[in-house]
Amino acid sequence: MVKEKKTRRPKAQTPKGFRDYFDVEVSQRSEMLGTITSVYDRYGFEALESSAVETVEALGKFLPDVDRPNEGVFAWQEDEADWVALRYDLTAPLARVYAQYKNNLPSPYRRYAMGSVWRNEKPGPGRYRQFYQCDADTVGAANVAADAEICMMLSDVLEQIGIPSGDYAIRVNSRKVLNGVLENMGLEDQGKRDAVLRTIDKFDKVGEAGVRELLGKGRLDSSGAYIDGIGLSDAQSDPVLAFLTSRGEDTAKTLSNLRKTVSGSTVGQVGVDELEAIASFVDVGGYGVDKIYVDPSVVRGLGYYTGPVFEAELTFEILDKGGSKRQFGSVAGGGRYDDLVKRFTGQEVPATGISIGVDRLLTALREKGRIAVQPIGPVVVTVMDRERMVDYQAMASELRKAGIRAEVYLGNPKNFGNQLKYADQRNSPLAIIEGESEKENGIIQIKDLILGSKLAKSATLEEWKENPAQIKVVRSKLVEIVQSMLKSIV
Amino acid sequence: MVKEKKTRRPKAQTPKGFRDYFDVEVSQRSEMLGTITSVYDRYGFEALESSAVETVEALGKFLPDVDRPNEGVFAWQEDEADWVALRYDLTAPLARVYAQYKNNLPSPYRRYAMGSVWRNEKPGPGRYRQFYQCDADTVGAANVAADAEICMMLSDVLEQIGIPSGDYAIRVNSRKVLNGVLENMGLEDQGKRDAVLRTIDKFDKVGEAGVRELLGKGRLDSSGAYIDGIGLSDAQSDPVLAFLTSRGEDTAKTLSNLRKTVSGSTVGQVGVDELEAIASFVDVGGYGVDKIYVDPSVVRGLGYYTGPVFEAELTFEILDKGGSKRQFGSVAGGGRYDDLVKRFTGQEVPATGISIGVDRLLTALREKGRIAVQPIGPVVVTVMDRERMVDYQAMASELRKAGIRAEVYLGNPKNFGNQLKYADQRNSPLAIIEGESEKENGIIQIKDLILGSKLAKSATLEEWKENPAQIKVVRSKLVEIVQSMLKSIV
Repeated sequence: MVKEKKTRRPKAQTPKGFRDYFDVEVSQRSEMLGTITSVYDRYGFEALESSAVETVEALGKFLPDVDRPNEGVFAWQEDEADWVALRYDLTAPLARVYAQYKNNLPSPYRRYAMGSVWRNEKPGPGRYRQFYQCDADTVGAANVAADAEICMMLSDVLEQIGIPSGDYAIRVNSRKVLNGVLENMGLEDQGKRDAVLRTIDKFDKVGEAGVRELLGKGRLDSSGAYIDGIGLSDAQSDPVLAFLTSRGEDTAKTLSNLRKTVSGSTVGQVGVDELEAIASFVDVGGYGVDKIYVDPSVVRGLGYYTGPVFEAELTFEILDKGGSKRQFGSVAGGGRYDDLVKRFTGQEVPATGISIGVDRLLTALREKGRIAVQPIGPVVVTVMDRERMVDYQAMASELRKAGIRAEVYLGNPKNFGNQLKYADQRNSPLAIIEGESEKENGIIQIKDLILGSKLAKSATLEEWKENPAQIKVVRSKLVEIVQSMLKSIV
Repeated sequence: MVKEKKTRRPKAQTPKGFRDYFDVEVSQRSEMLGTITSVYDRYGFEALESSAVETVEALGKFLPDVDRPNEGVFAWQEDEADWVALRYDLTAPLARVYAQYKNNLPSPYRRYAMGSVWRNEKPGPGRYRQFYQCDADTVGAANVAADAEICMMLSDVLEQIGIPSGDYAIRVNSRKVLNGVLENMGLEDQGKRDAVLRTIDKFDKVGEAGVRELLGKGRLDSSGAYIDGIGLSDAQSDPVLAFLTSRGEDTAKTLSNLRKTVSGSTVGQVGVDELEAIASFVDVGGYGVDKIYVDPSVVRGLGYYTGPVFEAELTFEILDKGGSKRQFGSVAGGGRYDDLVKRFTGQEVPATGISIGVDRLLTALREKGRIAVQPIGPVVVTVMDRERMVDYQAMASELRKAGIRAEVYLGNPKNFGNQLKYADQRNSPLAIIEGESEKENGIIQIKDLILGSKLAKSATLEEWKENPAQIKVVRSKLVEIVQSMLKSIV
């Protein structure tokens, strides 16, 4: 025999910034995606699963003269030919798919997509280089009825996965209204326009007064640093502040406030008309302002969109790590972006859509106790006699046939304590025990592990002696008794 | 305004060997995975979703001195540091995960995994570089009860997704028995042993006589080429042939035949004992030989495994592209491989598992007509008057609230023919029409598109005039009538 050369053992770890998902992290997400799918389906949306790998050219984020175009994405070169990359979102692939197949796709094309995306960014706490996205978009519909539909669908999704009306708000705004405001300000300089957009984006953080300072002379940060302002006069800043704070006591009032801020601007008026139409669509659809409403202070990502934008947030409070209460915040966002397919075909194609933060929603539901952090595990059939594995397997088969999650302990059965430790690790509700004497008497023992662990914490000696957490039943009653015991546990 | 430099438009296509999945291709697979998950869950298996990107070192398929180790995988270098790659299967990541987390995982660890894998191979017809795998493995269980469990679970999976008993067979064999045969042949030379393995792997294609020729002097191929043999004598070849053809009229006979072929070999005897134990486990579990049986002629992939191996095939006939009948063939396979984790930790860890070919199963079910190739689409509410979009959206909302898949036509409504074309493309069962005169009279028209398309093919002029495929109902009965019409369609 040739002696193998000793080599260093490989390290058992994921690459930096990547992670694995275990057990309920996977199954609860998958259940949630199933629920979301059923809502998308009811709205006539159909599934699309595009290739995870795209040509860099089709993703289209890179400068043509960069030798290795992997800024922000994971890219590699195929045999000195094309550069290819892992998709960084689900929207760029949708554009490619629509351009490639538009003659065979329905028009408008309502599609949903769920899957991993990859970003070549610096990983940090809770920030991974591979994560899930869950999108729904309508391509080829210019009418804002499509935007309203997305908002109503989002409302249905949230309620279907267990967030009742009152625990969330879907807020709608419009990039066109903002453009109207900028037009009215007479701000021609693109640099200044962009600066105003970036400032508006800080509204959530710095508030009305902060935005006014940043639009004007500048602002002393809470850290003590002085942030230069854009240098607008107070009069020039007024329309921006009027826009951001134009939410009134009801939708009619909000719209009339907005109309004032854009009076004289055609694009601004169109923007308000569109918001009015959306408000009317959702109202007639039966979605009150407790679910969906126009709110001009929604500014996140406004720069990217070309028309209506929407954001869903959870309004209930949770405790943060420091123990103080805070609102849970945003769980979904989207809007209209009308130049999706143009780079491929030269034709403008209207599109609107939403991206749902599934992992954030799961966190929210866990923190509210609406889904279990560690659900009940399988019934474990223990092995008292390794020669009788067949008997134990038969018990597990019987239980499974009755729809009960069950398994035989398949490790080394020598140490019975290890078997119970295993059952504990699996969060098993019940352990089945059939030793020699039980077998002879035609009985089995069923150990209630949940009651057992309660007693272990608090029982008196008398209670212990009674051993109420372990009962004897005749073998033939296995399924029946397990079923009734599980019913009282779950 | 600065004029944009004209650049070549990007090509809208996937990289070579990659593809997109549309609509039912995605939703039917996802439904099937849901069904499979529910069976895996009932057996106590838990989900694992490992990172799609692994270090090349952890995947461990490559020579250390190759500059770009991308043979067979998609790999790239991270910032002049580690080489990383897309996973090429779900087993190598399982080994890494188990080595990394073994102190926190239950032992034995039953896990299932479903997801894409990537192979950097030459693409061909029906052969893609990204495809799905659906695995279940038990790590840390040396007892063949674990293998039996996998086989029973596989049987449950097949029946649950719609392949009844009689339409499939799960065949079980053992690598240890084969090793016993090789031992008895006195074949010490590793090169010759490997050659025998490769020859055995051709049994399905060339049959008993062919294997005998290839083990001996060689064989004239059907193409006219002469394939050199291994040069064994007839007497040396006998045990191999005896092994391959040892299936008897029942399990007892098969096992006794096998016992003869390995008499005197310890490993061979252990192999037969294990097959006997598996046969006994599945029998007691209620799985007859019509579902699971020992068959020594199962040889696919035998070389890779260390103990029992299993293969599931569909036994019904389908028509191939040429129109001739053939058996559908293999849809799942697996077995025991006991050196999974060793390269990371130095310790041998027993493991056994299965991989299910989900896309092949979907093809089989479609070909048998057990799942729809194009299922019924959404009800389409047409737009006769673009000023009344709100009314049409309200109809869609009403239908959806009743659980009916429905949508408003959101394209340009000018051409009504395009709306019906759209409905047709979506395979819609019904179109709702409410023009000016209908609105005035408080009615709507419901067009039965399926009956309409039947009539269009075969109706007489009289039948046409009656227009039975289009009915008028009062607006308030929309949901009720649509519901009852859908019931008669589906």
